[in-house]
Amino acid sequence: MTHPLFDKHRATLDGALNAIATRGYWSPYPEMPSPKVYGETAHDLGKAAVQALFGGRFALDQPGQSDWVASDRSPYGIRLDVQYPVCDAEALLSAAEHALPAWQKLGVDGRTGMCLEMLERLNKASFEIAHAVMLTTGQGWMMAFQAGGPHAQDRGLEALAYAYREMRFVPGVARWEKPQGRNPPLVMEKRFEVIGRGVALVIGCSTFPTWNTYPGLFAALVTGNPVIVKPHPWSVLPAAITVRIIRTVLAENGIDPNLVTLAAVDKPETTQLLATHSKVKSIDFTGGSTFGHWLLTQARAHAPDRQVYAELSGVNNVVIESTDNYKGMLRNLAFTLSLYSGQMCTTTKAILVPAAGIETDLGPKSFDEVAHDLGTAIEKFLADQATACAVLGAIQAPETLQRMAEASKLATVVLASKKLVHPDFPHAEVHTPIVLKTDATHEGVYMQERFGPISTVVAVPGDAAALAALSERIVREHGALTVGVYSKHAAFIDAMTEATQRAGVALSINLTGAVFVNQSAAFSDYHATGANPAANASYADSAFVANRFRVVQRRVHV
Amino acid sequence: MTHPLFDKHRATLDGALNAIATRGYWSPYPEMPSPKVYGETAHDLGKAAVQALFGGRFALDQPGQSDWVASDRSPYGIRLDVQYPVCDAEALLSAAEHALPAWQKLGVDGRTGMCLEMLERLNKASFEIAHAVMLTTGQGWMMAFQAGGPHAQDRGLEALAYAYREMRFVPGVARWEKPQGRNPPLVMEKRFEVIGRGVALVIGCSTFPTWNTYPGLFAALVTGNPVIVKPHPWSVLPAAITVRIIRTVLAENGIDPNLVTLAAVDKPETTQLLATHSKVKSIDFTGGSTFGHWLLTQARAHAPDRQVYAELSGVNNVVIESTDNYKGMLRNLAFTLSLYSGQMCTTTKAILVPAAGIETDLGPKSFDEVAHDLGTAIEKFLADQATACAVLGAIQAPETLQRMAEASKLATVVLASKKLVHPDFPHAEVHTPIVLKTDATHEGVYMQERFGPISTVVAVPGDAAALAALSERIVREHGALTVGVYSKHAAFIDAMTEATQRAGVALSINLTGAVFVNQSAAFSDYHATGANPAANASYADSAFVANRFRVVQRRVHV
Repeated sequence: MTHPLFDKHRATLDGALNAIATRGYWSPYPEMPSPKVYGETAHDLGKAAVQALFGGRFALDQPGQSDWVASDRSPYGIRLDVQYPVCDAEALLSAAEHALPAWQKLGVDGRTGMCLEMLERLNKASFEIAHAVMLTTGQGWMMAFQAGGPHAQDRGLEALAYAYREMRFVPGVARWEKPQGRNPPLVMEKRFEVIGRGVALVIGCSTFPTWNTYPGLFAALVTGNPVIVKPHPWSVLPAAITVRIIRTVLAENGIDPNLVTLAAVDKPETTQLLATHSKVKSIDFTGGSTFGHWLLTQARAHAPDRQVYAELSGVNNVVIESTDNYKGMLRNLAFTLSLYSGQMCTTTKAILVPAAGIETDLGPKSFDEVAHDLGTAIEKFLADQATACAVLGAIQAPETLQRMAEASKLATVVLASKKLVHPDFPHAEVHTPIVLKTDATHEGVYMQERFGPISTVVAVPGDAAALAALSERIVREHGALTVGVYSKHAAFIDAMTEATQRAGVALSINLTGAVFVNQSAAFSDYHATGANPAANASYADSAFVANRFRVVQRRVHV
Repeated sequence: MTHPLFDKHRATLDGALNAIATRGYWSPYPEMPSPKVYGETAHDLGKAAVQALFGGRFALDQPGQSDWVASDRSPYGIRLDVQYPVCDAEALLSAAEHALPAWQKLGVDGRTGMCLEMLERLNKASFEIAHAVMLTTGQGWMMAFQAGGPHAQDRGLEALAYAYREMRFVPGVARWEKPQGRNPPLVMEKRFEVIGRGVALVIGCSTFPTWNTYPGLFAALVTGNPVIVKPHPWSVLPAAITVRIIRTVLAENGIDPNLVTLAAVDKPETTQLLATHSKVKSIDFTGGSTFGHWLLTQARAHAPDRQVYAELSGVNNVVIESTDNYKGMLRNLAFTLSLYSGQMCTTTKAILVPAAGIETDLGPKSFDEVAHDLGTAIEKFLADQATACAVLGAIQAPETLQRMAEASKLATVVLASKKLVHPDFPHAEVHTPIVLKTDATHEGVYMQERFGPISTVVAVPGDAAALAALSERIVREHGALTVGVYSKHAAFIDAMTEATQRAGVALSINLTGAVFVNQSAAFSDYHATGANPAANASYADSAFVANRFRVVQRRVHV
C-alpha cells in the first residue's frame, strides 16, 4: 500500500537515493533563475508577491495567537513591516502533538511522498522565496535565488533521502522461524513501526534562513515528528512563506496543518522556553557559539533524550604553501572573500602563508607580496560597482559593521573597506572586504571567527610542517567548516590530508577555477563534519537522520 | 584493495547484512553447547582454563600498570581471586590514541575483517567465557553459555553489520561533474574518509558482562575508535578474557594491541575520571539509573560532543486482559519470572490484571485466582531442585537479597521466596522468586524496578482501556524494555499496540509457548527502543552506529 504522492515523486526520490550513494553532481531543482525553466513571468510574479506582503499581516491560522510581530530587518535599507502571528508556545506544542497521530499513521511512504510534494511546491515558489531571502539577509539576487531556493531545496531533499533510506531498512514485517531440532520450529511474526521522537524545534539563522533550515525541517518531518520553525527575528519572511506552503500541502492532503508551525517570537524567553520544554525532543540550530553551547549543555541538562544538531562558528583557514597558478589562486580567493561579504559559515577567515614566502609559477613571492597581491585581486574583482554590489550583497548585521570598524585597528591593513552605493537600494549597507596581515604569534587577531568580510593573512615561521600544524590546531581548538590548501607538492597535500583528517574538517585542494572553498554542493559535499567544534552534525549523513526516529516492534506466534 | 580477514569472513558478514535487513532468525554462532559443534573436549577445556586462572595474575601487558586488583565476586560462593592489572587512566588513553592511526589506515574493510576474526575467536572460546560468566554473574550454566557466548557474539556481530552497512554507504571516491551550459563541465574528484570520533569507553554491567558489552565494543571498534573496556568490578573475568583475545588478534595482525584495553579499577573515581576525560568521545553503559543519569548529564555537561549510549532500568509489565490458554500463559510467565532469578533488564516486574478478573479458556478467573495460580505455576515449575537451580542461577548482589527481604513487607505475599541448596555449589545464594499482589493505587509497591526475583500482580479497576492506560503510563514515566499482553480480543491487542507505540516499547503478544517476553533475539528483536526512559539507544539499529564515525572529505579538480 503506497501513497499517490509517493508514486508521483518516486523518480525524484530515486534520483536522490542514487545521488547520496554516489555523491556525484545531481539536482532536480534547476539553479538558474531561467524564464525557460521557471516561466517567463516567474521573476516578476515572485517579486510582486513579496512586495504585496509588505506592511500586511501574514496570517497562518495557528492556535494560541495573541498578537502580531514585525521583526524583519533588511540590510538593503527598506522596510518590510510584514506582521507575523505571535502564538503561545504551549498552544503550538499541544497542537503539534495533536496533529501527530495522523502523520504517524501515514507511514514512511506517505510521509515521504507528502514531503516531496512540499519540496516541489517550494521549488515552484523559488522566486518568491528568493526575494524574501535577498531582502532579509542582504544576499545578492543570484545567491539568494540559488542558495535560498534550489540549493536549499536540494539540502532538504538530501536529508529526506537519508531519512527515507534509513527508515526503509526497517522491514514492516518479518517472519522469524527458529529450528528446534526434531521438533517443529518456533515461528513468530514480527512487525516493526518507525515512530518519531516528538516535537522538533528548528531554529533558523539570519543569513541563510532556508538553506540551514530545510535539512533539519525535512529530516524531522519525514521521520514522523511535528516541527516548530523558529526563524531568526530578522529574517522571518522566507521561513513564513515556507511554513505556509508546507501547511497548505498538509491541509490539502487531510493532515492537520498544525503539524508544522511558525514560532515568530517577540522576546528571546519564548525561544528558551521552547528549547527547554519537555515536549521538545530535538533541536536543530545554526548560529553563534554562545547560544549553541547553551543549547548543547543547558537545553540537554534536564532532558538527556533531547537531540541537538548544531552548527556553530569556526575559523576556516586556507594554507598557501606554493602554487603553480598564482593568478588563478588569487582570483579564486578574491571571490571567496567577497561573496556575500564573507557572511557565510564557510568563508575563509585565516590565510596561512610561510613567513619566508612561497614559490609560484610567477617566481618566488614574499609573504608581503602575497598579502598585497590578494588585496589587489579583491580590489580588481570588485572594481566594477554593479558586479561588486551583486557579489557582495549587503552587510546583514550592525554588529558586523562594528567588527569591521574595529578590525582595522587590530593589525596591519592590507586592504581597507570602502562603502559602495547600491544602484537599486540607496540605503543598503554595501562594503568591500577588509584584509589584514599579521604574524602567527598574534593569535588574538586571526584565531577567532570575526563573522563578516574580515580576513587575515598570517605569516607562519618555520617549515611546511609548521603550516599544517597551525591549520590543524586552529581547527581542533576553534572549529572549522572548510580548509583549503594550495601546494605544488604532493607530499604537502598528503600532510594536509592527514592533518585535516585528524582535525576532522573538509579539505579543498588547489582551487583556482570556478569552484570555491566556501561552496558546498548538496548530495556530494558533506557540509560540516560533526567532528570538530564548529558543528556536531553534518548535512547530510546517516547520523543526521538515524536518531530522529525509533523502531517499536510487536511479535506474536503464527 | 581488500583485507585477507575480510575475505575470510565475507560470508558471515553477508549473512549478518541480510539478517539485519530481513530480521528473520539467523546466527552464525551455534547456541547449543554441543560437543559435535564445539568439540568433545571443549566443555572440560573451557572449565579447566577458567579454573587455572584462579588465584593468579591475568597479565595483559598494558601500559601504566601500577598494581593488581582482584574484585570478582561469585554468587556461587567460590573464590576466584584472579588479579587484574590496575593501569593509570592517562596511560591507557595515551596508548589508545597512539594505536589509532594504524587502525584508521586499515580502512573499513580491514577493520571489519579483523573484528570478524575477533568474534570468531571469541566464539571458539565460548566455553571458557561461559564459565567465567556463570561464576561471576550467578547465571545458570546453559544461560551463561548462550547469553554469555553465542548470543553475545551475535549482538556484537549485529552491531558490526549495522556499522559496516553505514560506513559502506560512504563512497571512497566520487567524480563530480557539473554541466556549465556550452562551456566544459566543472569536474572534481572527491575522496571521502570514514574516521572514528576518538576513544570509546564501554562500561559493562555485573549481570551480563559480555552480552551488554559486545555491541558497544564492536560498534565503536569497527568504526575506527580505540576502546577501553571498563567491566563491573564483580564480573571482570569475562571482559578480561574478551580483551585478551581481541588484543591477541590485533597483535597477530600488526596492530598495536593497546587499541583495546581493560580498565580494571580499584576505585570508582577512576571510572569517573575516564567518563569525564576530554579524550573520551563516547560511552556505552548498561546499569543502574543513578550512574546512568550522571553519565547522560554530568559526563556530557562539558563535552557536548561526547556520545552516551545508555541502558538503564525500567518497569517492564505484562497486561492480562483475557486468555484462551490459561495454563500456557501461567507456564510462560513462571519461566520468565524464574529465569536467572529475574535479574534481567527485560524481566517482567508488574503484572496488570483487571480487578474484576478475566475470561479464560478454563472459565472466568478472579484477580485473586490469577495471582494465586501464577504463584502455584512458579512453585510447580521449580519443584525439582536440580531444574530450579539450573534455571534460577544464584542471586548476584547482596542488595538484591536485601530487596527481597524488604519486598515481603510491602504488600500481600502470593508466593514467598525459599532458599535452595545448589548441588554443586553449597554456598551459592539460590532463592526462589517472590510474587506480591496489590491494587493499582499502591504505586509505590509496583512502580519501581526492584531488580531481582520480585514481581507484583496489580489489580487494576475499570475497563480494558484503564489497563492499557496504566501500562502506558508506567512505560512513559519509568521506562521499560518489554511489555507483554494476553488477550483474546483483537481490539484490545490493537489498543495495546497503539499504547506501546506511543510509549515506545516492544510488545509481545500472547506468549504461551517457548518464547518469553524477557528474551530478545539478535538480528531480529530490537533490544530496547531508545524511545522511553529505560534506554536512549537500541541493540542494534542505525542510530546505534551512525554517529560513532564521521566523514572527512577532500576535493580537487581533475
